[in-house]
Amino acid sequence: MKKALILLGCPESPSQTPLALYTSYALKNAGYEVTIASTPSASKLLEVSDPEQFYVNNRVDIESCLENLEENIYDLLVGFVHKDAAVSYFVTFYHILNTKSLAIVFEKDADLLEKFVNDVQENTDADIISARAYHNPTPLRVKIDRAIKELED
Amino acid sequence: MKKALILLGCPESPSQTPLALYTSYALKNAGYEVTIASTPSASKLLEVSDPEQFYVNNRVDIESCLENLEENIYDLLVGFVHKDAAVSYFVTFYHILNTKSLAIVFEKDADLLEKFVNDVQENTDADIISARAYHNPTPLRVKIDRAIKELED
Repeated sequence: MKKALILLGCPESPSQTPLALYTSYALKNAGYEVTIASTPSASKLLEVSDPEQFYVNNRVDIESCLENLEENIYDLLVGFVHKDAAVSYFVTFYHILNTKSLAIVFEKDADLLEKFVNDVQENTDADIISARAYHNPTPLRVKIDRAIKELED
Repeated sequence: MKKALILLGCPESPSQTPLALYTSYALKNAGYEVTIASTPSASKLLEVSDPEQFYVNNRVDIESCLENLEENIYDLLVGFVHKDAAVSYFVTFYHILNTKSLAIVFEKDADLLEKFVNDVQENTDADIISARAYHNPTPLRVKIDRAIKELED
């Protein structure tokens, strides 16, 4: 079975947890075994959102995950990026895993959004989808659907 | 079947959507048919979080819900309160429904939290649970479990 790793940063944006649940669900439907690596608070928000683990089966601490990371142990890396720290994590995981990668960049401030997209572009060859997003998850959801469909094609 | 109405305000706090999913799930397990009334953006966050509708089956717009509200059409009102507007909605729904009610008050700022709790106390006889909460949903989840258990006793 193909394995995907989703990276979550600090859960300050109200869209992050909903979009992470959705992305995990969509990747499971596309045939991936999905693991979500995150900070403890982001992990607790996933746990409370999905008490029966319908959408998210595997949650790991982002630091422990990083310590045990090796090239190609995942077939796909998906990173949620809306902070400088999340850019750094994504770039680090990208270069260790050396696998197909997708950055989902979101910010309500247009200048910061552009900065994060540029940071990812300068440091990786990952696919990037981005949207000014805070409350409304729909623009990113549509782009996530499209990106996952392209993975299957 | 007993009917519960959950009120959600503006989804600025990253805890609100996860706790709303959890509360809907817990009330369903306690035998309630649950409807969530919210703003359009809060509703979209629920939809994206729960694409198979395992946890939330009925979502309605808070304004349309208010227009059609009558005394006793729900057995339980649960309101998430973390803004002045949410206090106003809760108090309005409380006095129209005239039914068992629970306010879940959360804010990261201690003074604002106390203000919202006082506002609800002065204007209703609802049960109130509260916590300083932003990223970490656990303190409120524990209190929600206890409040729902007391409903069943």
